Amino acid sequence: MSAHTPLDPAPGRRLGEFDLIARYFAPLAGPGAFCLGDDAAVLTPTPGWQMVFTTDAIISGIHFLADDPAADVAIKLLAVNLSDLAAMGAEGVGYLITTAWPRDLDEAWIAEFAQGLAEGQAAYSVALLGGDTVATGGPLSLSLTAIGELPSNSALRRKGARAGDRIYVSGRIGDAGAGLRILRDGLKGGAATDRRRAVERYRRPQPRLALGRSLRGLASACIDVSDGLVADLAHLAEQSAARMILQLDRVPVSPLASLIGGAACAIVSGDDYELLFAAAPGNEKQLFAAAREAEVAVTCIGEVVEGQGVEVFDRLGNAILVDRGGYRHF
Amino acid sequence: MSAHTPLDPAPGRRLGEFDLIARYFAPLAGPGAFCLGDDAAVLTPTPGWQMVFTTDAIISGIHFLADDPAADVAIKLLAVNLSDLAAMGAEGVGYLITTAWPRDLDEAWIAEFAQGLAEGQAAYSVALLGGDTVATGGPLSLSLTAIGELPSNSALRRKGARAGDRIYVSGRIGDAGAGLRILRDGLKGGAATDRRRAVERYRRPQPRLALGRSLRGLASACIDVSDGLVADLAHLAEQSAARMILQLDRVPVSPLASLIGGAACAIVSGDDYELLFAAAPGNEKQLFAAAREAEVAVTCIGEVVEGQGVEVFDRLGNAILVDRGGYRHF
Repeated sequence: MSAHTPLDPAPGRRLGEFDLIARYFAPLAGPGAFCLGDDAAVLTPTPGWQMVFTTDAIISGIHFLADDPAADVAIKLLAVNLSDLAAMGAEGVGYLITTAWPRDLDEAWIAEFAQGLAEGQAAYSVALLGGDTVATGGPLSLSLTAIGELPSNSALRRKGARAGDRIYVSGRIGDAGAGLRILRDGLKGGAATDRRRAVERYRRPQPRLALGRSLRGLASACIDVSDGLVADLAHLAEQSAARMILQLDRVPVSPLASLIGGAACAIVSGDDYELLFAAAPGNEKQLFAAAREAEVAVTCIGEVVEGQGVEVFDRLGNAILVDRGGYRHF
Repeated sequence: MSAHTPLDPAPGRRLGEFDLIARYFAPLAGPGAFCLGDDAAVLTPTPGWQMVFTTDAIISGIHFLADDPAADVAIKLLAVNLSDLAAMGAEGVGYLITTAWPRDLDEAWIAEFAQGLAEGQAAYSVALLGGDTVATGGPLSLSLTAIGELPSNSALRRKGARAGDRIYVSGRIGDAGAGLRILRDGLKGGAATDRRRAVERYRRPQPRLALGRSLRGLASACIDVSDGLVADLAHLAEQSAARMILQLDRVPVSPLASLIGGAACAIVSGDDYELLFAAAPGNEKQLFAAAREAEVAVTCIGEVVEGQGVEVFDRLGNAILVDRGGYRHF
């Protein structure tokens, strides 16, 4: 881990960058990271396996709310990246993190953030491999690169879905969108437990690593739901060169969906980080067994046909025209 | 590569994030990156080799100057990370990049930045494996994770230097510091070619990958000079639990060193990205042959003794007391 020497060092920071790293981040370092005391980390790949890489950044006020608890921000940063590994069927190994702290950020926030990382590491079996910490005059910005691995040639891709395949989604859709509306817009209504759960799902999404792993060789294509169910289904459609038919009434939506405009709105709200995948018919038994083992529900929500794009039908059989940017009714 | 859906999309950006990625970054994608069209990249490790990871961020106005050419900023971002791989003796494989663009950044800047990445990729044999692009209200912020590989158990570490070893540095020291002073402070003086070279060295540092690779099994400890020769020597001293004796008059300094306060100032100026390493006596012949092959000079500048910390002697044999934060004369 490196502490950059800026042209002008951050004034007024009580702890130097090196001290911050030593106190809060070095204890998170995994084997091969040399307690963050070297130029780089060294990892021995599992023979016969491939390595998987992804990176995602989150910025205060854009991807999370400025008053979200620091530990939750850490969990979210880890989770959105591990969710990409899950979508490839990969297992987590480690991560590198870049933190740009505003100059007025207090040490307690950083301590709580590191605590969140520790919690995430334990939950998802990954370790810190390196990082960089800089001071910024802009908003708090966090970037993470996640490293995973999987048996060679078993990666789940966005391409591969074929006409006749069924489309499935894990968990339920719209919780995170409702959680954001509760936190940001003061959205009212719904049961207290559902509200708590929605906020939790927005702040601490759960990467479906166990499910992703068990979908290797079973799913024909896979993606995680970050942009929204319809937008991500469009990615599958594009990469698979196929048409995705979505049955709106089959989508397992948040109990708070009615507060945010119903199921048609839930399917275009983002941040749920569920797995959305296709699988050939005849695999249902294995699929549901895998889902049970991963302790998450999996629901068939549509099917793959020849063509391109996404088509959504409501429970009355009416088509809802959808594009990447969102949805509109006929 | 992913384009985040922000809570509020950036207004006024002519090209969407997906279009930016498709137009400027997808052409840079290497094998296994799936044209940036999937959730993550997949890489097959070389059997019997280890993988090496490092990350470094640079921010406009802190680590580079706001009016530095975009292609140079791209080269610098790549180079500072690849320099960490070089210091471990690793060869470059690929990288992931996170870009936080200010909302008013024009497309021409991004196009030139991507051109710089393409140039750096060709020079250093690495390929883009993924990334994330977000909009920010803060300054332009760039973060890169570099991935390298090396034969198992051949990594050069900061630890390993032993009493009796010689200390060496590649290239020359102080060019980048002088270049920064020319650009930022309007520093006058020196020959025109030296001034051009100093600015070039500040803006486009050259990672010593070929030298690092040839130091495997030859150097006992190694680091790259980013914080400054003395500060980085202190890192070697600390990790190796040894004392580093530096002969100031032996340090190959920039021809512009006299403009920035002489050799004593050059050795505390940063950003040169040369390799600083220790090697047991008796290896000189191999060392200089390796340097010739890597087309960079290597100079013996001191020796390792029992103890701790760094001690600097000037040409008159006077000790100059040095600490991590900089230097002061007795």
